[in-house]
Amino acid sequence: MTTKKRVAVIGASGYAGAEVVRLISGHPHVSLSLLTSRQYAGQSYDNVFPAFTGRIDLSCETFSSDDAIQKADIFFLALPHKASMRIAAPLLEAGKKVIDLSADFRFKNQSMYEKYYQPHEYPQLLKKAVYGLCEINKKQISTADLIGNPGCYPTSILLPLIPLLREKLVDLTGIIADSKSGVSGAGRSPSLGTLYCEVNEGFKAYKVAEHRHEPEMNENLSLAAGENVQILFVPHLVPMSRGIVSTIYAKTQTNEMELRECLQAAYDTCPFVRVLPDGRLPNASHVRGTNYCDIGLKYSKEKEIAVLVSTIDNLIKGAAGQAVQNMNIMMGFSETDGIDAIPFPV
Amino acid sequence: MTTKKRVAVIGASGYAGAEVVRLISGHPHVSLSLLTSRQYAGQSYDNVFPAFTGRIDLSCETFSSDDAIQKADIFFLALPHKASMRIAAPLLEAGKKVIDLSADFRFKNQSMYEKYYQPHEYPQLLKKAVYGLCEINKKQISTADLIGNPGCYPTSILLPLIPLLREKLVDLTGIIADSKSGVSGAGRSPSLGTLYCEVNEGFKAYKVAEHRHEPEMNENLSLAAGENVQILFVPHLVPMSRGIVSTIYAKTQTNEMELRECLQAAYDTCPFVRVLPDGRLPNASHVRGTNYCDIGLKYSKEKEIAVLVSTIDNLIKGAAGQAVQNMNIMMGFSETDGIDAIPFPV
Amino acid sequence: MTTKKRVAVIGASGYAGAEVVRLISGHPHVSLSLLTSRQYAGQSYDNVFPAFTGRIDLSCETFSSDDAIQKADIFFLALPHKASMRIAAPLLEAGKKVIDLSADFRFKNQSMYEKYYQPHEYPQLLKKAVYGLCEINKKQISTADLIGNPGCYPTSILLPLIPLLREKLVDLTGIIADSKSGVSGAGRSPSLGTLYCEVNEGFKAYKVAEHRHEPEMNENLSLAAGENVQILFVPHLVPMSRGIVSTIYAKTQTNEMELRECLQAAYDTCPFVRVLPDGRLPNASHVRGTNYCDIGLKYSKEKEIAVLVSTIDNLIKGAAGQAVQNMNIMMGFSETDGIDAIPFPV
Amino acid sequence: MTTKKRVAVIGASGYAGAEVVRLISGHPHVSLSLLTSRQYAGQSYDNVFPAFTGRIDLSCETFSSDDAIQKADIFFLALPHKASMRIAAPLLEAGKKVIDLSADFRFKNQSMYEKYYQPHEYPQLLKKAVYGLCEINKKQISTADLIGNPGCYPTSILLPLIPLLREKLVDLTGIIADSKSGVSGAGRSPSLGTLYCEVNEGFKAYKVAEHRHEPEMNENLSLAAGENVQILFVPHLVPMSRGIVSTIYAKTQTNEMELRECLQAAYDTCPFVRVLPDGRLPNASHVRGTNYCDIGLKYSKEKEIAVLVSTIDNLIKGAAGQAVQNMNIMMGFSETDGIDAIPFPV
Repeated sequence: MTTKKRVAVIGASGYAGAEVVRLISGHPHVSLSLLTSRQYAGQSYDNVFPAFTGRIDLSCETFSSDDAIQKADIFFLALPHKASMRIAAPLLEAGKKVIDLSADFRFKNQSMYEKYYQPHEYPQLLKKAVYGLCEINKKQISTADLIGNPGCYPTSILLPLIPLLREKLVDLTGIIADSKSGVSGAGRSPSLGTLYCEVNEGFKAYKVAEHRHEPEMNENLSLAAGENVQILFVPHLVPMSRGIVSTIYAKTQTNEMELRECLQAAYDTCPFVRVLPDGRLPNASHVRGTNYCDIGLKYSKEKEIAVLVSTIDNLIKGAAGQAVQNMNIMMGFSETDGIDAIPFPV
Repeated sequence: MTTKKRVAVIGASGYAGAEVVRLISGHPHVSLSLLTSRQYAGQSYDNVFPAFTGRIDLSCETFSSDDAIQKADIFFLALPHKASMRIAAPLLEAGKKVIDLSADFRFKNQSMYEKYYQPHEYPQLLKKAVYGLCEINKKQISTADLIGNPGCYPTSILLPLIPLLREKLVDLTGIIADSKSGVSGAGRSPSLGTLYCEVNEGFKAYKVAEHRHEPEMNENLSLAAGENVQILFVPHLVPMSRGIVSTIYAKTQTNEMELRECLQAAYDTCPFVRVLPDGRLPNASHVRGTNYCDIGLKYSKEKEIAVLVSTIDNLIKGAAGQAVQNMNIMMGFSETDGIDAIPFPV
Repeated sequence: MTTKKRVAVIGASGYAGAEVVRLISGHPHVSLSLLTSRQYAGQSYDNVFPAFTGRIDLSCETFSSDDAIQKADIFFLALPHKASMRIAAPLLEAGKKVIDLSADFRFKNQSMYEKYYQPHEYPQLLKKAVYGLCEINKKQISTADLIGNPGCYPTSILLPLIPLLREKLVDLTGIIADSKSGVSGAGRSPSLGTLYCEVNEGFKAYKVAEHRHEPEMNENLSLAAGENVQILFVPHLVPMSRGIVSTIYAKTQTNEMELRECLQAAYDTCPFVRVLPDGRLPNASHVRGTNYCDIGLKYSKEKEIAVLVSTIDNLIKGAAGQAVQNMNIMMGFSETDGIDAIPFPV
Repeated sequence: MTTKKRVAVIGASGYAGAEVVRLISGHPHVSLSLLTSRQYAGQSYDNVFPAFTGRIDLSCETFSSDDAIQKADIFFLALPHKASMRIAAPLLEAGKKVIDLSADFRFKNQSMYEKYYQPHEYPQLLKKAVYGLCEINKKQISTADLIGNPGCYPTSILLPLIPLLREKLVDLTGIIADSKSGVSGAGRSPSLGTLYCEVNEGFKAYKVAEHRHEPEMNENLSLAAGENVQILFVPHLVPMSRGIVSTIYAKTQTNEMELRECLQAAYDTCPFVRVLPDGRLPNASHVRGTNYCDIGLKYSKEKEIAVLVSTIDNLIKGAAGQAVQNMNIMMGFSETDGIDAIPFPV
């Protein structure tokens, strides 16, 4: 019997970190060995997340490179942008596998990262990093040491669009993505905008055409298309905890069947993408708690516009679940290990 | 002292009907004299809506033309499509004012109505009817006897678009309206799709490019533009009770200031349209319970797309409130009588 | 024509303060003249609460006694405990009317206040202050200069219990109040516990038998009973923005009709208390947005327990609405001026 | 390798049935072989519950005894009361294991069942049936053929009370259970009372002291106490999909530590009951999606009342999860097989 690989979650007190902890604790081939949190250092983890009482025995520790290198083989970084890059470097040097949930390693184009975030202190690592959109980059992921885990919005938008762009089935210009996200995407730090009473019974657009996920999408869409693609991205906040629905509009003169068959072919062997049959459209509630991305579509022949609708759980396929999927691919585990939950019926 | 005009609400047991009842009961110049409901006939109205206990003393009656003509001067019809047209005819003949909340009198183009609804039995009334989008058709409304009160989605989409189309500030082709509605728009009849557990923590698109409000919008947009306009309309369901947010995408080479000034000029004297300043975007919660339509906008110079975001309370400006506003205009009352509620801060 | 009295809201950036602002702005006999907020000083008020755009023109100011005394006649203090007492003193000295929404002037028993809050710096004002439970203390309120506006939970519990205690219809020992509150009661300051994701799809008890509203209730229940009453109070948090439901259990050997008649007699002439008929129980949604307190009841003959169920909107009858009701009584206005909203049907 | 036992879910189109389907589909030792639904007969199951797309391949069938006996070994009945007893009889005769989620086999006392439900047509089966409250009746369950799976409210109330009654730690008279349930407990049949808009932003008590779960509790509490116990039970409806919180009040002169130790001792070896430490209280969100029952408590020395607070997911520990737990015990599987999900952190 082989020893299980040891997993560290760095930044375990946010929602994404906690979801990594939950998924890893149910994983057949790895075990949790280190949880870090600056804010909760010294506290038992089930004090931070009482739901985990009786299931997670660890306490939160302060991060230290040397200590971390001793304690774990695989690292999930669930930290704010910038903190991640600094922590990743020594871990990689020590031969560790690193899956980073921040934006620090998502970009190939350093200047694009720097335009939307801050100066990158480890540009050489950008070359090493693989963008962890599993269904698209599976091969490179399988040999990677460093993963830039995709943003939640980009995951929901890239998965339906990339196959169509590759096959030149939609126009490259004028693509619009109108996305709607649950509140957990904003994280666990208290802020006025995410208070219950401020969100409940409300709905709003925010950061219209200026969200930092837009360049992340554009880089990957351009790669898929083989030429420059610039979509317009408008996010909205939905009064629900989890889930993203993206409604994507693309000009095209094809037809619905061709579009659907392209997507079905692209994801035929992918366990987590469900291309819905004619007449069915996705619902955020149908993927909640799971690593699925559901995609439905409708073609308006009259207006020559394809409407793609996709949904994911932003904390799972949009963050922690895809991170574990990346680990599974990197480590040669079954792709669904630890992330094969069946959605609730309601 | 003049006698107050008497108001009948025909179909008072649905959400829109109940909102008319509530608004009329607080109106300074009219009084409720008749409430009808087939389902609840004979029951006291506060048994149907216990919130009204101590405030509305009437009971639900079965509708009869003769009786209704005796009992009221102004009629709000909050009935399903088709039922409305049959009831409206004799009331109009008896010289009554009729404000119909169904789609039966919204269309000028009879064949368009018949394509999306059913054969129209009173086509001559279509000519008589005025489309009750108050800010746009105020003058015709002031002399009308029969109002086709606009649909909720169309109200939220026509108000931001019409001034821009009139001024030729946006392209007529390729306009997309991505709308999100609370659940009350689906009415009060029990159905699986509007059960709490089916809606809560979910979000979905429905009737993509095939909702019956699309032709209603197109007829009115085309009138404003002076030529044929066909937008693509995609509605979504939000887990909240009230509110619609419409995010509208239109190609244009203008700039944000020009767009905002056009809207501000158009609605300068309109008490219920608030064009938000630069940097502010609407939130459904900011208009809840009121007759406001808030409009914000953002222009993407890079993509040459104007993003208009509007919000209304679907039961008020999208139904009962606009109906009362129509009555106010028809009767020569102050436009804000009975519908001047200030939104809740939260 | 007489000049309208000028109203100041001190601490206008919290939920209760904002509700006072909203209600006062629709009041026929007073007008807003001063809004203060330390945090938002200098900002236009509709920047803090965008819902008020176009309706409230004032900006937030920093509080200064001298300035405030010049600018207003009636003061609503919506501040944290302790801040209130310090601000009230000079205002009262200057002959102003003060309605305080904090706990600082709710207690007759100074030591009880000090046990649960902090040392009281103006004990002589406690004697001057009237506990503003309008239906119970109307007479004293009418001549008061300083009102301690009741807590939200106490309002919901005192109104159903006091008439029964006065008439000795229930046992004085063993009374239990199991209350459930919406989230707005926790205020507008960002905190982990009131984040959307922490509240949504959850339900919990908190501060079991140790909430500071318990002594406030006990003081007033004891006054009503003419002897010491100590109830057990357990609050819970409900995933909704507004509303409190209190389920109260009291031993008694009477019957349902007698209990109901006692309550009906007590509140016969009170516009804001609705004692529901047999077979009807209150729902928080039926009073939302209004100053009503609805009371229903059921008697279990077998267990000799009366179950009283009451509901209020915690921000209105539980805070801002009752504060305005107090002002109306103090100033000799009609009791319902500015607070006569009819509840939404849904 | 042994063949997996085959499981039938009779009445698979309700929420509880669907949860049984979900849990069984992830169970290591059994497999789904038959799903029945009168309403959806002939439809693929993922058409009824689209969340299951790609995970459940079966279609809904009409129930027929003969066919069912051929197709499955273990039967979960998720049917309305009365329908269950008629279906159970022939299955038991054919030697099948039957776990019934209705009330038909929950009572030992036939007349009590008949008082609250209807005449029992198979009274002899009542003797055979075991009340499937797993932690309490584990031994009898292990040899049972027929399980009356407990009601959701009773599960949440019996688990905290039974150990205390057995040890005579609380008074037998005057116990009050104030319970709050999410909406899924009301089932999936469309009804006005469970529409989104009727539930959202509301909270209410219902069936005060007359809910049919009260006699079910009383029978089992009396068994535990060895004498007659009659509690007062008041249920409430919470705007959330899943979850029950019961706040239970019992007179006692003991202390908090003794109460907690009694519960900890009783559930020491039970994987699904978490007795929380001093200072922690349960939250419905901490058990959502799992088979846990969390119990917290607080003792008021001054009032001599113990306040017990328990929470379960009404569809899992309150229905489907406990049903699977019963199957596990009956079949000699590990008690946690298929129901060991870790709660979401949020």
